[in-house]
Amino acid sequence: MERIDEIGFGGLKLIQDPERFCYGVDAVLLADFAAKQGKSFDSILDLGTGTGIIPFILSYKTDAKKIVGVEILEDSYEMAQRGAKLNGLEDRVSFLNMNVKDVTGTFDAVTCNPPYQAGGTGVKSDNLEKMAARHEIYGSLEDFIGAAARTLKDKGDFFMVHRPARIVDISTLCRKYNLEPKEIRFVSPREGEVPNILLIHCVKNGGKNLKILKPLNVYEGESYTKEILEMY
Amino acid sequence: MERIDEIGFGGLKLIQDPERFCYGVDAVLLADFAAKQGKSFDSILDLGTGTGIIPFILSYKTDAKKIVGVEILEDSYEMAQRGAKLNGLEDRVSFLNMNVKDVTGTFDAVTCNPPYQAGGTGVKSDNLEKMAARHEIYGSLEDFIGAAARTLKDKGDFFMVHRPARIVDISTLCRKYNLEPKEIRFVSPREGEVPNILLIHCVKNGGKNLKILKPLNVYEGESYTKEILEMY
Repeated sequence: MERIDEIGFGGLKLIQDPERFCYGVDAVLLADFAAKQGKSFDSILDLGTGTGIIPFILSYKTDAKKIVGVEILEDSYEMAQRGAKLNGLEDRVSFLNMNVKDVTGTFDAVTCNPPYQAGGTGVKSDNLEKMAARHEIYGSLEDFIGAAARTLKDKGDFFMVHRPARIVDISTLCRKYNLEPKEIRFVSPREGEVPNILLIHCVKNGGKNLKILKPLNVYEGESYTKEILEMY
Repeated sequence: MERIDEIGFGGLKLIQDPERFCYGVDAVLLADFAAKQGKSFDSILDLGTGTGIIPFILSYKTDAKKIVGVEILEDSYEMAQRGAKLNGLEDRVSFLNMNVKDVTGTFDAVTCNPPYQAGGTGVKSDNLEKMAARHEIYGSLEDFIGAAARTLKDKGDFFMVHRPARIVDISTLCRKYNLEPKEIRFVSPREGEVPNILLIHCVKNGGKNLKILKPLNVYEGESYTKEILEMY
């Protein structure tokens, strides 16, 4: 059943359907990671946007004039479209209903919270939205990284959230498409635990000087850590 | 001035010269990481062995019958040779005075604590041993990884310690030489700090299933953490 959630960030609302797929902390981490670069992006493209969570948060956290989200599933795309109207953001935020493989254009920055499971691996779901969000069925990791490389301007910034266990795949593909990794941040559920989220920032045609950032923890006891709370 | 250090590990002694280069915690971490795999290696090759710290620790921590260290600098190689005699290990531990690029043979496992600084970068030293240990002057990262791939048996194990900031270079080179990363562990000076050491375990011609291990901290206050103390 579709519902409208108040998600914070200055009163933003998001249309989503819990029976299909709801956004997670990963999307918030990614939007915050991109917004905190201290750079001003005129245009941002979000690949695999779902119902638009990342473009909406970016509209709040950045002064980008043009934020475009790309989503292949028609139902999610329509919820994203209606979300833009609901939030009065039609002048800054728009959506495209297409496969990331077909996206064209040139952007200052690209964000991406792609499916984490390689095709044919992991726990399956009967639900199309959940499958598409979690598994590489419509686009592989290479398709997402290739689309980012194609749509970024020279020296443009690419921000992705993924699983740490895919770091070797991510590293080799980013190098292949000339998206040079500049910053990597590992996120653990709690201090001292195995990281389960990776944030990566690459620069198109950038030089080699990678920085590993301070680790981030999501929870402290049963609550969010101070750094996570400050993102909301 | 050359000296003989008692280094623990059942009374092992190491000949080294503080004016040239002394081994660090990295070598201990690497030897422990390799020894704790729970596999039994008949033969182990250590690339860029210095005065032999890793072969000596491995002789204590594993039941390998043949451990070979390769060192290009003659002075370090001779100290390593004398160290093997001093410890009564001549039957199990031997050394070769050559460039890793020229090493041949087939081993069950290869260990490597290579220079961390890419050629032409970082702080220079007047001392040849320090320069060779820290900078890629006699062999690049690719030379070390290539040598490991060449000297490992099929499905043989490669263990390396390096800097986290080189993870993208390491990932792409390991894939290039069919050393598939299986485990990565990040080591921080203290809990919550940026990791400054990376341990990686690859399998030659292995399948893709990387595991990121629990982070490790070296210090707690002014002392080593319990996990580090247990390595000695």
